[in-house]
Amino acid sequence: TSTVGKKATGLVAATFTPLTPKGEINLSEIGPYIDYLLEQQGVKSIFVNGTTGEGLSLTVEERKQLAEEWCRKGKNKLEQVIVHVGCLSLKDSQELAHHAAEIGADGIAVIAPSFFKPATAGALRMFLQEVAAAAPAVPFYYYHIPSVTGVNLQARDVLEGIESQIPSFRGLKFSGSDLMDFGRCVSYCPSHWSYLYGVDEQLLGALAMGANGAVGSTYNYLGKSGNRLLSAFEKGDITLARILQFQVQDILSYAIDLGFDLAVNKQLMSEVSGLALGPPRLPLLLCPQAKARSIAQRLQQVLGVK
Amino acid sequence: TSTVGKKATGLVAATFTPLTPKGEINLSEIGPYIDYLLEQQGVKSIFVNGTTGEGLSLTVEERKQLAEEWCRKGKNKLEQVIVHVGCLSLKDSQELAHHAAEIGADGIAVIAPSFFKPATAGALRMFLQEVAAAAPAVPFYYYHIPSVTGVNLQARDVLEGIESQIPSFRGLKFSGSDLMDFGRCVSYCPSHWSYLYGVDEQLLGALAMGANGAVGSTYNYLGKSGNRLLSAFEKGDITLARILQFQVQDILSYAIDLGFDLAVNKQLMSEVSGLALGPPRLPLLLCPQAKARSIAQRLQQVLGVK
Amino acid sequence: TSTVGKKATGLVAATFTPLTPKGEINLSEIGPYIDYLLEQQGVKSIFVNGTTGEGLSLTVEERKQLAEEWCRKGKNKLEQVIVHVGCLSLKDSQELAHHAAEIGADGIAVIAPSFFKPATAGALRMFLQEVAAAAPAVPFYYYHIPSVTGVNLQARDVLEGIESQIPSFRGLKFSGSDLMDFGRCVSYCPSHWSYLYGVDEQLLGALAMGANGAVGSTYNYLGKSGNRLLSAFEKGDITLARILQFQVQDILSYAIDLGFDLAVNKQLMSEVSGLALGPPRLPLLLCPQAKARSIAQRLQQVLGVK
Amino acid sequence: TSTVGKKATGLVAATFTPLTPKGEINLSEIGPYIDYLLEQQGVKSIFVNGTTGEGLSLTVEERKQLAEEWCRKGKNKLEQVIVHVGCLSLKDSQELAHHAAEIGADGIAVIAPSFFKPATAGALRMFLQEVAAAAPAVPFYYYHIPSVTGVNLQARDVLEGIESQIPSFRGLKFSGSDLMDFGRCVSYCPSHWSYLYGVDEQLLGALAMGANGAVGSTYNYLGKSGNRLLSAFEKGDITLARILQFQVQDILSYAIDLGFDLAVNKQLMSEVSGLALGPPRLPLLLCPQAKARSIAQRLQQVLGVK
Repeated sequence: TSTVGKKATGLVAATFTPLTPKGEINLSEIGPYIDYLLEQQGVKSIFVNGTTGEGLSLTVEERKQLAEEWCRKGKNKLEQVIVHVGCLSLKDSQELAHHAAEIGADGIAVIAPSFFKPATAGALRMFLQEVAAAAPAVPFYYYHIPSVTGVNLQARDVLEGIESQIPSFRGLKFSGSDLMDFGRCVSYCPSHWSYLYGVDEQLLGALAMGANGAVGSTYNYLGKSGNRLLSAFEKGDITLARILQFQVQDILSYAIDLGFDLAVNKQLMSEVSGLALGPPRLPLLLCPQAKARSIAQRLQQVLGVK
Repeated sequence: TSTVGKKATGLVAATFTPLTPKGEINLSEIGPYIDYLLEQQGVKSIFVNGTTGEGLSLTVEERKQLAEEWCRKGKNKLEQVIVHVGCLSLKDSQELAHHAAEIGADGIAVIAPSFFKPATAGALRMFLQEVAAAAPAVPFYYYHIPSVTGVNLQARDVLEGIESQIPSFRGLKFSGSDLMDFGRCVSYCPSHWSYLYGVDEQLLGALAMGANGAVGSTYNYLGKSGNRLLSAFEKGDITLARILQFQVQDILSYAIDLGFDLAVNKQLMSEVSGLALGPPRLPLLLCPQAKARSIAQRLQQVLGVK
Repeated sequence: TSTVGKKATGLVAATFTPLTPKGEINLSEIGPYIDYLLEQQGVKSIFVNGTTGEGLSLTVEERKQLAEEWCRKGKNKLEQVIVHVGCLSLKDSQELAHHAAEIGADGIAVIAPSFFKPATAGALRMFLQEVAAAAPAVPFYYYHIPSVTGVNLQARDVLEGIESQIPSFRGLKFSGSDLMDFGRCVSYCPSHWSYLYGVDEQLLGALAMGANGAVGSTYNYLGKSGNRLLSAFEKGDITLARILQFQVQDILSYAIDLGFDLAVNKQLMSEVSGLALGPPRLPLLLCPQAKARSIAQRLQQVLGVK
Repeated sequence: TSTVGKKATGLVAATFTPLTPKGEINLSEIGPYIDYLLEQQGVKSIFVNGTTGEGLSLTVEERKQLAEEWCRKGKNKLEQVIVHVGCLSLKDSQELAHHAAEIGADGIAVIAPSFFKPATAGALRMFLQEVAAAAPAVPFYYYHIPSVTGVNLQARDVLEGIESQIPSFRGLKFSGSDLMDFGRCVSYCPSHWSYLYGVDEQLLGALAMGANGAVGSTYNYLGKSGNRLLSAFEKGDITLARILQFQVQDILSYAIDLGFDLAVNKQLMSEVSGLALGPPRLPLLLCPQAKARSIAQRLQQVLGVK
């Protein structure tokens, strides 16, 4: 097996993309964002330009600038900066992958193209292979999120023989609720891949099934809690892990009852962190501040934070 | 809180309904079936006339006869016989509930009506309440299986204040993959309800989230393995629990790749157990024997049996 | 080909089932209901115990009593009384089919069983065949409504060779929006089958594709309008037909915006007709009267009625 | 109302994008393609870089080059060249809209962004408005295709007040099977908008409902037949129109039974036309030639060609 890169484990925050009030990318907020994650949340790895980062609403040029700034500011501070380079257009993805290699990203990740959907796991693997080949020395992750992409292929089938096609393959971000599929990925190749689980509200179930890390948007503001959950599970303290998981569930279900989407999520992060993340980009609409504030209050109440 | 009945925990087999080759119910196979579960699988509780039992393809009269025979033959042998009494027609459900009380069932369970779907959790709770009222002294379970019913209500919302409407309420069979919803049910009332998980291939995830039992069709032929999994988890041996769970996943995904539905499942049980369960009822069609045999062989291979 | 029965064409009202305020079937309202349809709506054929009639929420015994009363009161007044006899249980369907023959129904119809779903068109055809065989002298209709049953088989595939299996087959109620499938049914056997379209708000599209009749719930209160639409289309006056269709669309979309389901629909019919149809049965809940009244007002406004 | 442009009516072919065998865009095939449509199919308007054209798999730069070539070669030959400029990224769409204006496109069309989905019709309208504003003098069309985008908003709701937000708005391409929604669009503003229907296999139903044109991929190879259908309907010859529609349905259902997707569709066009359209782009895979050939033969058989 190849020796590229170190394995991504532990907690990874899927970062929001800071925009100016007018909707342009706001590079100046990235430095403070990284410091906030490290100092206030204990989060040492990030996943940028992904779903949470509105990557697919950005231009290729914007994604490059953002990736560059995240890598530059994260250097010698963060453990891992994984850059999501998935696009509907294979060529755009290849360009972003090549660029990620140039700027020294610790890993790249690719989501399944979702407009034209790959008909088989083999077709998806070929797409991933073509992207990975544009950055052969960078650890490669497949980003599995069928409820969003509508690509209802089993991740396990996508993994079949993947190392022979993608020597830089290092694992997956699994954002699905099908824990049989997840378990079968883990049992297929348990030792040297990263199994990063992405449905934050049921992480504990995935840890039981063998996850060795987690990537999600909530770790932006629930990083400490997430680290405690990981640690409790590792020590075999299921009771504590369950309490911590139930807290996350309480907060998220409160949010969902109010109407929770990426726009609200972004505004919630601004509320909790004090960072100026700005509005989302169309077709998402800025959420009413009162809604985000109400969720932030619930969060503080549940976590027992002032 | 009410004192009706004892709490259902541990492993519960959702039984198949034995039919004659001509498709009539075959009561004579029920005694041997119970002995098989006890002696060969170590399974002490059963859930009859449910989805696995083709309950909704049977007439009210057939369901009564079956329930009666399961209770009679299970008496002093089984720990719990839970009779599923859910129907599309409320009146039919009430009649079955009343009958279940008469024959001494240890519990009754009701699935959400799926043709006309309750529009809200409150409407579903009213339906459940009307059924439970026909057998007020029998422990009552809500059977949650949204992927089959298409009733996409949160189980947690159905539970809201349910004890004031249904004093005999004792828990739920949760056959869904949404572990946030499941976790929120558990955290809503952790101590005196049964949280029986029904997606056998990801039971381990649900145990981490707080399940205190499992109901499923695979425990008909994977009962020993299921008991070992429950026991490993209870002792904190996640590694062993995971190995056992991966075995179940291997068998089921092998079956799914071949084409797995209730008809195949029933035939598989006949193959593994030697019981004469007969064909399924229309609209299900008898599966080719070779398919069931192939799955049975995989099962034996994976479990290292014979 | 067989000679059973006359062909159902023209407008067919899918009747609601009158219930008493306490929710029991109310046979005494059936006579006045038939008179209302004939005299006020110009509707001469009915489809009873179907989806609109909450057939699947009724017991077998209730369905028999209702069917009998509809046939008895409709005798020598109505052109056709088609009795829906579909159930989840094949045996129940057979019993109802046999009963429908005894009471002199002009036709029987069967919906696809929707809990256990037929895996193939062949499996569904076998189910239909077994029901039809219980009433071989009664014209048989397949009731196709995939959005409700979740049985996503092509109606055209169900029709394949159906006459050799069901000699009494006479047509279908097609309640789907897939007009290619509908067109292929029509072109498969254009001359001697009934093609009754069941999505009232887009009937005109189906007429263009070859429908020779319509069955629906709205014809209970929009019968006159429906007859005018059929007649305009027959005369080649597409412009008038379109105006009439747009009126129906206006009324229904107004209703949908308010929240429209079978419970509201039933209450709307009570409002418009003055008949005492009573509440729906659980899991449906009685709709607020103001809602039904508001829709009734819109209806009168659009149709230019008083 | 604004006076920009002429109204698009009649038959519009949604063109495939010619690629070289290696998957690069092949501009040299565009001239012959246009001649083929005009001379062999009688098609005078085209819709480029849309779904059929794999627009969303192309880079912004490729889409510009293609649009430019289609406009240049179509000049003084074609009646209308409508350029699809929809992207996931608003900025990319704006850039393409601006470019379409520069190259003299007769219209631009925008699909709903489908990764992040607009939550309301208002949000989608704002997105469309921002794109249209980048090319205010070019007739603007909304491209409605909910089964592909998963954006399940009613087109009618999107149209609400749209002219005040988008003065250049001229109509829509409606590729959905919900003819009530379509009818409500038509009745909302019948006179000066284009209602181009996009589900080729049920065009006749939409014509009855008020469509004044059609856009689709099948008109690349079924243009003559499509023109005859439009003409028959206009003359009130429903019987002939139905025969022609049934032919299209026969061909497409034959294709669907074999497995029909955009890759097969593209290969079919190459087979029928003799043009060298090349492979599709990943994640679509080249279809086996035998499959496309078999469909082409069916087409010729059904149409009675050669």
